[in-house]
Amino acid sequence: MPLTPEQQAQIDEQRQSPRQTLRTVADGMEQHLFTAYPVLDHGFVRVIDYMGDDAAICQAARVSYGRGTKSVQNDEGLIRYLMRHWHSTPFEMCEVKLHVKLPVFVARQWIRHRTANINEYSGRYSVMDREFYIPAEDKLAAQSSQNHQGRGEVLQGEEAQRVLNLLREDAMRSYDNYESMLSQDGQQGLARELARMNLPTNIYTQWYWKVDLHNLLHFLRLRADSHAQYEIRAYADVICDIVKDWVPAAFGAFRDYRMDAVSLSAQAAAVLKRRLAGDTVTQEHSGMGAREWREFQDVWG
Amino acid sequence: MPLTPEQQAQIDEQRQSPRQTLRTVADGMEQHLFTAYPVLDHGFVRVIDYMGDDAAICQAARVSYGRGTKSVQNDEGLIRYLMRHWHSTPFEMCEVKLHVKLPVFVARQWIRHRTANINEYSGRYSVMDREFYIPAEDKLAAQSSQNHQGRGEVLQGEEAQRVLNLLREDAMRSYDNYESMLSQDGQQGLARELARMNLPTNIYTQWYWKVDLHNLLHFLRLRADSHAQYEIRAYADVICDIVKDWVPAAFGAFRDYRMDAVSLSAQAAAVLKRRLAGDTVTQEHSGMGAREWREFQDVWG
Amino acid sequence: MPLTPEQQAQIDEQRQSPRQTLRTVADGMEQHLFTAYPVLDHGFVRVIDYMGDDAAICQAARVSYGRGTKSVQNDEGLIRYLMRHWHSTPFEMCEVKLHVKLPVFVARQWIRHRTANINEYSGRYSVMDREFYIPAEDKLAAQSSQNHQGRGEVLQGEEAQRVLNLLREDAMRSYDNYESMLSQDGQQGLARELARMNLPTNIYTQWYWKVDLHNLLHFLRLRADSHAQYEIRAYADVICDIVKDWVPAAFGAFRDYRMDAVSLSAQAAAVLKRRLAGDTVTQEHSGMGAREWREFQDVWG
Amino acid sequence: MPLTPEQQAQIDEQRQSPRQTLRTVADGMEQHLFTAYPVLDHGFVRVIDYMGDDAAICQAARVSYGRGTKSVQNDEGLIRYLMRHWHSTPFEMCEVKLHVKLPVFVARQWIRHRTANINEYSGRYSVMDREFYIPAEDKLAAQSSQNHQGRGEVLQGEEAQRVLNLLREDAMRSYDNYESMLSQDGQQGLARELARMNLPTNIYTQWYWKVDLHNLLHFLRLRADSHAQYEIRAYADVICDIVKDWVPAAFGAFRDYRMDAVSLSAQAAAVLKRRLAGDTVTQEHSGMGAREWREFQDVWG
Repeated sequence: MPLTPEQQAQIDEQRQSPRQTLRTVADGMEQHLFTAYPVLDHGFVRVIDYMGDDAAICQAARVSYGRGTKSVQNDEGLIRYLMRHWHSTPFEMCEVKLHVKLPVFVARQWIRHRTANINEYSGRYSVMDREFYIPAEDKLAAQSSQNHQGRGEVLQGEEAQRVLNLLREDAMRSYDNYESMLSQDGQQGLARELARMNLPTNIYTQWYWKVDLHNLLHFLRLRADSHAQYEIRAYADVICDIVKDWVPAAFGAFRDYRMDAVSLSAQAAAVLKRRLAGDTVTQEHSGMGAREWREFQDVWG
Repeated sequence: MPLTPEQQAQIDEQRQSPRQTLRTVADGMEQHLFTAYPVLDHGFVRVIDYMGDDAAICQAARVSYGRGTKSVQNDEGLIRYLMRHWHSTPFEMCEVKLHVKLPVFVARQWIRHRTANINEYSGRYSVMDREFYIPAEDKLAAQSSQNHQGRGEVLQGEEAQRVLNLLREDAMRSYDNYESMLSQDGQQGLARELARMNLPTNIYTQWYWKVDLHNLLHFLRLRADSHAQYEIRAYADVICDIVKDWVPAAFGAFRDYRMDAVSLSAQAAAVLKRRLAGDTVTQEHSGMGAREWREFQDVWG
Repeated sequence: MPLTPEQQAQIDEQRQSPRQTLRTVADGMEQHLFTAYPVLDHGFVRVIDYMGDDAAICQAARVSYGRGTKSVQNDEGLIRYLMRHWHSTPFEMCEVKLHVKLPVFVARQWIRHRTANINEYSGRYSVMDREFYIPAEDKLAAQSSQNHQGRGEVLQGEEAQRVLNLLREDAMRSYDNYESMLSQDGQQGLARELARMNLPTNIYTQWYWKVDLHNLLHFLRLRADSHAQYEIRAYADVICDIVKDWVPAAFGAFRDYRMDAVSLSAQAAAVLKRRLAGDTVTQEHSGMGAREWREFQDVWG
Repeated sequence: MPLTPEQQAQIDEQRQSPRQTLRTVADGMEQHLFTAYPVLDHGFVRVIDYMGDDAAICQAARVSYGRGTKSVQNDEGLIRYLMRHWHSTPFEMCEVKLHVKLPVFVARQWIRHRTANINEYSGRYSVMDREFYIPAEDKLAAQSSQNHQGRGEVLQGEEAQRVLNLLREDAMRSYDNYESMLSQDGQQGLARELARMNLPTNIYTQWYWKVDLHNLLHFLRLRADSHAQYEIRAYADVICDIVKDWVPAAFGAFRDYRMDAVSLSAQAAAVLKRRLAGDTVTQEHSGMGAREWREFQDVWG
């Protein structure tokens, strides 16, 4: 359970006092506000605030004086057109602020996305909590034998058990020693900013993360992808579900033109055209390298 | 008057349908929402949307589970501390979206602030309106004789009249010819993306501009400054009034620690210390160049 | 001719004093350094400085201690892999600084690319030169009848002549009046920062523009595209020729996987798969809207 | 010693083959190129590449056709003027690329500076090295009793020894277990991307970091400051020494107007003016809070 009763009470309180506003309200998003959706064993994602909705994308694209929306159908058509033709600026007109609790090694991947605002819990200022990510057994994967940067099959039996034990023991011992170094009981106590260096990167941290919709979709494209590390993908998947309710038309366009889209190189497009004309094309005559040819065949046979 | 009756009706309509939300509501900002505040002769600034308030700055700084605010006084102290010590990220947790109508030459200065989202009215796609900035008589300044990049005294009498006539006539003639080149009456009509090049940069354009509070304050620091060109300062001043009502504590801290603050170089600080100790210091012994010394004396005598 | 003899002499001088460096040197780029390549009627692009080459991309991707390159073939394979899989950060490790002279209306499109460094010639501080873009006759296009944001056929005969005359006359008159307002001959002279507003946006400005290779390629992808306005495409095309000599492997990968690549939506990919299986698919059963279907047919028949 | 003989040989090789270039060469920087300057116990900073020098700042500020420099004295005056008046864009025209080896907890602070390009050694793809930061005894500080986010006195005797032992033992054990989980000797071997989560954040990582001079100086202002954590300050100090040789005029201006400058709030400036006029001002009448007053007194007595 990621939340203490006190934290849950604080969150619940936020859901109990609706207020009036003249701003755009996205009903699909209001229902998600503040709810802490669990991710991994101790993490969560919750929406703190948002700005805009599908209509706000059209309103900005049209530089409107009023709400700027026409029919829902018309708006969806515009949004799909904008996405298809890489007109990204109208999507930047929506913004979302999330509170995320996540292991440090996930945070280190996440923060590579630079066009976002971040406030992280400070281990210089505060004591870290004793919470560590320990993978579920079905997520304890071996090193891939084909891919330097990937996972192979799930570990079995004794090996799996040994790994879980090591991860748990090292986490607990590191934290015990962290506490013991900090302790001011009969000693001065090491500075927090130093003691934290003893903690492994499966410890949980948390941050407020604020990002515009265009950059969020770019994040999701890379991190909800099958090549992303499972642990960050787990967060991306939860965020996808939220975004789908927030801006359904934009998310639909994103899915069709980005997530589920296929990018064909000049060479791959030429091969497909020859195939459509009835030719059989082999790698030698494809203009593609061996690896690219394999990737091509994975999609097109 | 910057707005047509139809535009005013669209704006008014937006103010007439408050909705419920669970998000943070800043009462001081709700009152400004959508109202088009006039700037210069045909321009305006109006708030389309916002995210956060003073409390949201503290909430992010504390990475809180709930509203994250303590007493108003305590929050204000934290905000002032953050501003004083250049902890800028919590201020990035507030966001505002403006609709601005402004002359093109002002837009060219404004867009130099890169950390913002923009959708501008497109002169490729649409026909520009016949609206030009013509300075008020008391803003028609001569070139400064001391400063390459500045204004001197206000032009008088005949010269002022001649300038105003030239600006008006050239604007009208350029626009007449713009229309005549576009016309498809008995001719093909020049492409919009080409015809617009005939228009001078005092023509008005408009855009949606979205920015976080930290970057907005940085914009205001540079553009509400006495060295900024009057025409952009006019916009910055109006935005200052809005921000003051939106996040009063943050704006107060900004005023005290940025806008009205004085930055002393190492040399200037040393001179002040010697003066406080009773010494008289001349430029020769100040470590400052002639120009810097003049700037120093302007503040400290 | 875009350059005065004095400017040409200054440029030539820079090419005459090679120096020794321990840094990476890209021979293909050294030959372009400082040469002002003409664009449009008075514009140019010239390379002021650069950092890195193809090998530097691999060196950063491998976080190498030495030069970080293996065989040229191996490096090219890595670069193509990085481009294909959207690993963009190694491409950010190359940087280029250009001096560009361009019409203001082109500059206004260009500056929308925010991840770059810019110093523009200041019309507040200095007097603008009397140089205006007047399109060549074969570039004087009518408004497209199908596309709000596009060009149709080239204007003919009298209409073309009338347009050229209007553009030339308005430019000259605006500049005459600009000079006359600035003049301090028997009058105070209007401030430069005000007088410039009378100038149309086909006047030339110039700037130093510095950008990393990843963002430069993104710029080229959008601005060397057939949907871009011809006048900015003219600059993008010249820059493409320079980049091709600077980082040939990266540019080749960019051409194959971005410029000449085809992006298939989920729906379009499904249609192609059905076609490859021998089915005939009509728009009704494609899952695509009418406009998207047209775009699809333009490529795939 | 941070480098293996093989790494040192690779670095040395880079210093032995000077080449000719037409670009700007900064002699003060050439001498630093590639040299790995040690930081902390296993870290280093080394310059991989650079673009520009002091003259390049002036060249961009003047949008010059040639080298753009006048006398050295004149250039220094311009640079000081630009720095004093927050004209930051010309400083963005210089760029530097560093190879840095640093503990993960330092990397986590460093990466908060978002306007930079980064390629980090990948623990998904490669096996991490067994190198951990263990503080020198005189850097083993207690938690500050006044400041949540600071260090107090250096730990003494037994406590210091106990801390060092814990840090060393936990690092070694975590690494042993990391290796044992990775091992494919008689078992499948855990995926690298998972095993690395067992490693504490004092393990060393490394990256290529590329940044423009303006953003580098901003980094140095915050990280070479006395409030920065010692471990990142150690890197900032080494970089300061390099920048001083690279762009001496810009660094001098930075030191005088930023690093060693004093920022006075509106209230503090008013107090100083009253003091200069002979008044004695107490906190009650200063308009400052207790904490700000203490900070003021630390500087001004």
